[in-house]
Amino acid sequence: MPALPSHCPDLSTLYLGAADVARIVERIGLRASLVEVAARIGSALRRWPEFSKVARTADHSRQGVIELMPTSDAQDYAFKYVNGHPGNTRLGLPTVMAFGVLADVATGQPRLLAALSLATAIRTAAMSALVAQHLARPDSRTMALIGNGAQAEFQALAFAEMLGIRSLRLFDTDPAASARLVSNLHGQGLRLLTCASVAEAVRGADIVTTATADKALATVIRPEMVEPGMHFNAIGGDCPGKTELAAEVLRQASVFVEYEPQTRIEGDLQLLPADFAVTEFWQVLSGARPGRRSAAEVTVFDSVGFALEDHAVLGFLEQAALALGLGQRLQLLPPLADPKNLFGSLAPAAVSAAMRPVLLAA
Amino acid sequence: MPALPSHCPDLSTLYLGAADVARIVERIGLRASLVEVAARIGSALRRWPEFSKVARTADHSRQGVIELMPTSDAQDYAFKYVNGHPGNTRLGLPTVMAFGVLADVATGQPRLLAALSLATAIRTAAMSALVAQHLARPDSRTMALIGNGAQAEFQALAFAEMLGIRSLRLFDTDPAASARLVSNLHGQGLRLLTCASVAEAVRGADIVTTATADKALATVIRPEMVEPGMHFNAIGGDCPGKTELAAEVLRQASVFVEYEPQTRIEGDLQLLPADFAVTEFWQVLSGARPGRRSAAEVTVFDSVGFALEDHAVLGFLEQAALALGLGQRLQLLPPLADPKNLFGSLAPAAVSAAMRPVLLAA
Repeated sequence: MPALPSHCPDLSTLYLGAADVARIVERIGLRASLVEVAARIGSALRRWPEFSKVARTADHSRQGVIELMPTSDAQDYAFKYVNGHPGNTRLGLPTVMAFGVLADVATGQPRLLAALSLATAIRTAAMSALVAQHLARPDSRTMALIGNGAQAEFQALAFAEMLGIRSLRLFDTDPAASARLVSNLHGQGLRLLTCASVAEAVRGADIVTTATADKALATVIRPEMVEPGMHFNAIGGDCPGKTELAAEVLRQASVFVEYEPQTRIEGDLQLLPADFAVTEFWQVLSGARPGRRSAAEVTVFDSVGFALEDHAVLGFLEQAALALGLGQRLQLLPPLADPKNLFGSLAPAAVSAAMRPVLLAA
Repeated sequence: MPALPSHCPDLSTLYLGAADVARIVERIGLRASLVEVAARIGSALRRWPEFSKVARTADHSRQGVIELMPTSDAQDYAFKYVNGHPGNTRLGLPTVMAFGVLADVATGQPRLLAALSLATAIRTAAMSALVAQHLARPDSRTMALIGNGAQAEFQALAFAEMLGIRSLRLFDTDPAASARLVSNLHGQGLRLLTCASVAEAVRGADIVTTATADKALATVIRPEMVEPGMHFNAIGGDCPGKTELAAEVLRQASVFVEYEPQTRIEGDLQLLPADFAVTEFWQVLSGARPGRRSAAEVTVFDSVGFALEDHAVLGFLEQAALALGLGQRLQLLPPLADPKNLFGSLAPAAVSAAMRPVLLAA
C-alpha cells in the first residue's frame, strides 16, 4: 500500500485477533492479567459518574441472544458485541463469542478492534474477585464452583490470586466438564474436590460461584443450601428468563449489583419486585455504602456484566498491545486527502455514466 | 497459521476494509451499486414486520455523537457503528466514519466486518431515491442540492439514475464544496448550476435535497421557499438538536419517515408535537398507505437513516465480495477443539502459578 502524505492523520485501527489477545495474556501471565484488569475496573468504578450508562441492546431469537454494550467516559468510547447461544457447543461453536471496539470520543475514530472471548472471561472473573474482596468474609478459603464450563478456570484463578482461595468444591451436570476443569487447574496449588450434587458442593463453602449456562429460570441454589456468612457470586443468570438463585435466597441476603436498571431486567433480581433494595457495587468502592457488615451476613453479587468492565479490559489490551508491539492495522476508513470528498476516493471507472447495471439480487 | 482439523467449523470473519469496498463499487459501478442497494432496501422494507427494530443507542459528547444501529431478521443480525463529528474536517478527519457487522442469528457468529463510510453514502442515496420514486412527481427533472459535502455526489447520481433528474441547482455555504461537486460530476450528463443562496437554488426545483452538516436547529428551508408539488428529501437533520426544515414546512406537507419512534427523536420531526401524523415509508411500498396523492401536494421524506438500510447494504457487500473474491479473513474467535475449554486455548506458560504480576496501570 502506498504511503500517505505525512500531513494525513493516521486513520488506521489496531486489530487484535484471538491469537494476539492470547499472546498478550501469555506474555503478561493470566494471574497478573486478572489482577491488572481488576485494578482497572476498580479505578473505572471509582469514576462511575463520569461514564455514560445505557442498558445494552439485546436482540433475542429462538436460539439465543446478541447484545451490544456501549459506554464512554470523557476520552474513550467502548462497545462490546457479545452473543449467548447455549446450543452452540453441539455445533462445535462457543456459547459466547465476543469482540469490542475502543474509539476516541473527541473524533469518533475507532482506535482498537479486539477479540474479546478470552478477555470477557478474564474481566468477568476479575470483576467477581474484586467484588468478593469487599463482600466475602476475609477468612474465605473454600469456594464452591457450580457450572464448570468455559468461565470456570478464570473464576478459580482470580479467586485464588485475589482472595486466597485454596480449596474448590466442583459440580457440573456434565461430569466431563468437571474432569476437564480439574485437569486444567493441575499445578495451581488448589485443592479440588468434585461433588455429586450442588448441595454437596455448596456445603461448608465460604464463597459460592454459580456459572451455569442454561437459558432458563433455573433454581441452582435453594434456600436450604445457604449458610450464614456465605458470599454468592452469581454470574450465570444474565438475561431475561435466565436465573440461578431461588427468589428466597435473594430475599434473605444483601444483594449487590453492577448497574441497577440493567440487573432488574437481566439478573436473578428479575425474580423480585422492583422495590427490592439493592446496592450498586461502585458505591461500596467509593465508601458511600457498606459492603459486608457482619461475619454472619449472607451477601449476593448478582452479576450480569456491565459495559464499563469491557471498557476497562479494552484499555488493558490496547496498552499491552502497544507496549508489546502486537497486532495489525486495519484500514476501515478511506484515506482522503479532502475529508469532504468521499466520492474522490473512487477510481474514475467506477462512475462512468455508460456502465450498465449488473444486478446481484434475484 | 496451521490448518485446523477439518471437523472444526470455520470461525473466521470476512473483513472488507475501505479499499475492498471501493474495489467492489468500482467493479460493479457506482450507478449499478446504487440501483442494486435500492432494490435490496426495497425488498427488506416489504418484509418490514420480520425485522427487529430498536432505536439506535446514541452517545452524545460536546464534539459529536457515536451511534450503534442494530437490527435483525430471522437469518441475519446486523449493526452499524457510525459517528457524526462536524468539527472533524478541521482535523483532516471525515465527519462520518462507519463500519458494520453481519452475524448469524442462529449462532451469533460474526460473519462479516466491513468498512461502511462509502457504503453509508451509497445506501443513504439509494434510500432517498427509492423514496422519491414514490413521493416525487414522475415528471421531476430538476433537483436542488443544499449542502454539497461528502454525500452530495451520491445523492446526485442516485437521483439521475433512478428518477431521471437532469438538472442540479447547487448551494453550499462553502463555495469550494460546490466547485468540487461540479468537478466530480463532470461527464455524468447533468446540467449543473451553482446558486448564490438557498432560495435561488430551491426556486423552480421539483425535488429539494438538504444534506447540511451543522449540529444545530438550522432553518435551511423556510416556508416561503416551498412551491406546490415539491418533494423534500431532508437527509441532514438526523439527531436531537440538528434540523434543517422550518416547522411550518413540515406542517404544510405530507411527511414520510423510516421508523416513526426514531424519527420523532432524531428527525426534523422533533420540532413538532408527538401527535403530528406521519407515514412510515414501508407502508407505501406495501400498498397499505398512499404515497403522493396529487401533483400539487408537498411531500417530505424526513430521513434519519435506519438500521435496516445498513442490513441491506451489508448483504450487498457480502455477496459481492464472495462473488468477486475480495477481502481477508479475521480470526476474532479462538479456534477451540472443545468449545467449553476456552482456558485450553492459552499456552501453559500463561498460567504458571509462579509468574509475578507486572502491573501496567499507574
